[in-house]
Amino acid sequence: MCLLQNLTGFGETCQVSNAEASMRTIWWDSTAHTVKMIDQRKLPLAFEIAEYDDYHAVAEAITAMVIRGAPAIGAAGAFGLALAVRQSQARTPRDLVADLEAAKAMLDAARPTAVNLTWATARVLRRARNAVHCTAQEIAGMVLAEAERIADEDVAINRRLGAHGAAVIPNGANILHHCNTGSLATVDYGTALGVVRAAVEQGKKVHVWVDETRPRLQGARLTAWELMRDHIPMTLIADNAAGQLMRTGRVDVVLFGADRVAANGDVANKIGTYKLAVCAQENGIPCYSVVPTSTIDLSLPHGDAIPIEERGWEEVACFGGAQVAPDGVAVYNPAFDVTPHRYLTGIITEEGICYPPFGESLRQAKEQAEARIRMQEA
Amino acid sequence: MCLLQNLTGFGETCQVSNAEASMRTIWWDSTAHTVKMIDQRKLPLAFEIAEYDDYHAVAEAITAMVIRGAPAIGAAGAFGLALAVRQSQARTPRDLVADLEAAKAMLDAARPTAVNLTWATARVLRRARNAVHCTAQEIAGMVLAEAERIADEDVAINRRLGAHGAAVIPNGANILHHCNTGSLATVDYGTALGVVRAAVEQGKKVHVWVDETRPRLQGARLTAWELMRDHIPMTLIADNAAGQLMRTGRVDVVLFGADRVAANGDVANKIGTYKLAVCAQENGIPCYSVVPTSTIDLSLPHGDAIPIEERGWEEVACFGGAQVAPDGVAVYNPAFDVTPHRYLTGIITEEGICYPPFGESLRQAKEQAEARIRMQEA
Repeated sequence: MCLLQNLTGFGETCQVSNAEASMRTIWWDSTAHTVKMIDQRKLPLAFEIAEYDDYHAVAEAITAMVIRGAPAIGAAGAFGLALAVRQSQARTPRDLVADLEAAKAMLDAARPTAVNLTWATARVLRRARNAVHCTAQEIAGMVLAEAERIADEDVAINRRLGAHGAAVIPNGANILHHCNTGSLATVDYGTALGVVRAAVEQGKKVHVWVDETRPRLQGARLTAWELMRDHIPMTLIADNAAGQLMRTGRVDVVLFGADRVAANGDVANKIGTYKLAVCAQENGIPCYSVVPTSTIDLSLPHGDAIPIEERGWEEVACFGGAQVAPDGVAVYNPAFDVTPHRYLTGIITEEGICYPPFGESLRQAKEQAEARIRMQEA
Repeated sequence: MCLLQNLTGFGETCQVSNAEASMRTIWWDSTAHTVKMIDQRKLPLAFEIAEYDDYHAVAEAITAMVIRGAPAIGAAGAFGLALAVRQSQARTPRDLVADLEAAKAMLDAARPTAVNLTWATARVLRRARNAVHCTAQEIAGMVLAEAERIADEDVAINRRLGAHGAAVIPNGANILHHCNTGSLATVDYGTALGVVRAAVEQGKKVHVWVDETRPRLQGARLTAWELMRDHIPMTLIADNAAGQLMRTGRVDVVLFGADRVAANGDVANKIGTYKLAVCAQENGIPCYSVVPTSTIDLSLPHGDAIPIEERGWEEVACFGGAQVAPDGVAVYNPAFDVTPHRYLTGIITEEGICYPPFGESLRQAKEQAEARIRMQEA
């Protein structure tokens, strides 16, 4: 029996309208007081908007990968708290904050690896805690405003890291890209794909080798869709083909995102990243992880301290509602792997490109970004 | 539109009968005068036997991957010539040999990378050429006998290389395996999976990490089926998970087959092998290619001289009859990659394990094997 029936099975191809092309991945509907998001399980063959008025359902949507990508699920967590504040029956600001704490715990548990989720919910909750002297209605307004600010900042941050990162993309580059790090993985524009977009906006010609990214095919389904929509030249490959392309000189730079960066520069990213990074180093190809500083977790000394999510057997054993492996097959399905920092040329952030020693450069980038947030909060 | 509808879509799970379990992958039906083979496109969810009385159809079956695996398609080519000799309208032995030459050319073109195909058809044709003084009927008998001998020898060769290879499998080993190299890839028993079987027969406990092997999922569909049938412990993984398993000490040895081995020890094997071998070396894990000597092609100095087959876009863009990537997506789909010999610990053959310098050890193994064939022919 297969559970993964929502990945495929749509007969019609989605025609992308201009409205869709300019749409954010996630946003607050201020008329309906709901969170809306593109249902990423259904792309590229259907374009549907999911709508939530309950933070429990947002947590479920994050787990089910209606929305995915570290920065995007950060925004989803923040908007989830904006729903929680509306759902709360609390009579005092203190009780409201307690309800938000419970909601945060639930949202944070939706997916364990991307630190952006807890980063965003912590930021929203801090706002509420600091306002415990205000009315419940004022707190509700502040919580929503903070969630909106996180979403808006994400777009601005991506544009800044795109500008920094474009500097390492030569004109005419063949870029190898893993998973999806584009508009769909963020609120808009993207991290690693933001770097690609920025390079194109600077007039550089590029071509992207798109890793299909088994098991959930974020590359084949989402990255291919985004790049084709933007008319950026691309070719889809099985993940297995990436090594050979590197060995035979057909890759100039390897780009991917990350779900969490440890203090020493080790990165947890979509399963398969480690093999790519090892092969890039073996072939002398520059290899960058592209992240907002919210993905950096200085509390973890190294990558093996990052919790790695394991997902269901059906993502590997089934496809499009059809079983591909024998009945009862044992499956191991980690969603992420850890790439030790020694394989990375640099980590591109909105504060600039961090180079080794990462312990120092990441701390500096993180401090700069946090100073910026504190200035805004003051 | 998807063309690859035959990979999945079967609702019923195949129950493996004892007859099926002991069946060869390919054989000659001496009553019907036909070639029969397990239709590997339909496993693991349906068990069907394809039957051919026309060598053109055998060539098409090889291209369509009804049968695949270098040694198995060698046998298919040989049996194809046994059909061709029956189909020939030639009135003289010389004309019969000419017909066989045309049939050989057609069969050889069915798939370009595995040298076993041309090796086997050349061996059968040599038999016919040497018998040009005999009657057509005698030649027909000799051609069929030579094809049968190639099939029988393949099983014996696999048992011998299994015995050699089992020596490098520690008791309790976690073995990482790519593609399918088992009974289904050969006439019976297997090459790399033959090594696994031999280790198990020696009483060793092993566990196999089965790479699903995108795009055609020979691991998920065929290797998982074979190992489960034989009750050998295994776990299916997305190819992307293999690197992380190696980095975290959960792999003791990496095994795969090859479709062609160049004179210097470079091997062409299923796409994705190169990434595995690089990661194995990076993590100090022994890495072996397991092949009959018929896979060694001393005429090619290095791996980049091996022709690499490119297959259709639909193998990557579609799945189980369902489209997964956007309409009109550009796809690059090489079926094989080349792993330079420096990443291999050894190449396991029926003549023993070849170690570096491979130029010398492979030549020796090949000469021993050819001397054996010449003795049989004499």
